[in-house]
Amino acid sequence: MPKVSQDYLEAQRSEILEGARRCFAAHGYEEATVVRLEEATGRSRGAIFHHFPTKLDLFLAVLERDAEREAARWETGSVADVLAGLAAEDPDWATVVVEQSRRRRTDPTFRARWSRRTTLVRSALATLVARERTAARVAPTIPDEVAARFISVVGDGLLLQRAILGEVPHAPEVIALATAALSGGSGPGPVTPSG
Amino acid sequence: MPKVSQDYLEAQRSEILEGARRCFAAHGYEEATVVRLEEATGRSRGAIFHHFPTKLDLFLAVLERDAEREAARWETGSVADVLAGLAAEDPDWATVVVEQSRRRRTDPTFRARWSRRTTLVRSALATLVARERTAARVAPTIPDEVAARFISVVGDGLLLQRAILGEVPHAPEVIALATAALSGGSGPGPVTPSG
Repeated sequence: MPKVSQDYLEAQRSEILEGARRCFAAHGYEEATVVRLEEATGRSRGAIFHHFPTKLDLFLAVLERDAEREAARWETGSVADVLAGLAAEDPDWATVVVEQSRRRRTDPTFRARWSRRTTLVRSALATLVARERTAARVAPTIPDEVAARFISVVGDGLLLQRAILGEVPHAPEVIALATAALSGGSGPGPVTPSG
Repeated sequence: MPKVSQDYLEAQRSEILEGARRCFAAHGYEEATVVRLEEATGRSRGAIFHHFPTKLDLFLAVLERDAEREAARWETGSVADVLAGLAAEDPDWATVVVEQSRRRRTDPTFRARWSRRTTLVRSALATLVARERTAARVAPTIPDEVAARFISVVGDGLLLQRAILGEVPHAPEVIALATAALSGGSGPGPVTPSG
């Protein structure tokens, strides 16, 4: 085996992650076979397994990189930006993420290994809520943990509809309603008192 | 084969649906084998196949009955009731429903066969929005289709979190925020203008 530079290995790792994400999205986790992963990444199984000892390691690494990207968006964007990003996610990839939900809840080993992703997302969400509160876009009557949960429920709903429908009808209006709920104000236009 | 009454057959059909729902929830669609379906329903494969020629027929019948129950709740309850029902769904069953999302989007035959459920839910949702509007719980500025989409996004988010987490933290507060957004008012407590 020839000696290779660290840069080369990192570039290779990154390419494998990109290809694997497409492969998981196209075929789902179970059907993403070694042969298909080789095709999608353009790398041999030897190269893939060098970086990721098992398919699960590879899948979790893709999830983690996604979470890092998402967290980066949350560090700078508004709630509306974050929700719009989820509503525009690749429907196939959204499906794969959604399908792992059973496993995450029922398989303690998998849940533990998913934890880095969970921690990243939770921390980014807390940062987002704090920033939105400073900008007076979260009503003082809404506790941090309720605001964060509301954002994640609406975000998961958008992600699931993206996976099911391929698109979310009226996504901008739905997101505007959600942000209005957080700010404690009404949506655009006149307000009607609740009955 | 002995001659059996229509009542007996309908009771049997209903029992098979109940058992099958538990079986799908426990094992997922793929792993719900004929042997497991026999165990869960207490019926022979002959009896099961008499009512449902294939496992897919059985699964779709369970989904349809669920949709009928859900629609019945929507005919009488408020948005808050409907959302609370989704947040309290059996997490295992929620997972199975969520997992079929890829298939529904990518398999035209499956999507067509799922259509009765979709039609039931869409119609119930329209009824719900009309009733809530009459009760002044939907702001006049929010079109029907946006209100319906918002409810279904929040509902799907609750269902997905139920599937992933097993419970939805702060569900009542999250639901209160959603209903406040629809009414165009603020949640409980003083209002802060949005920034």
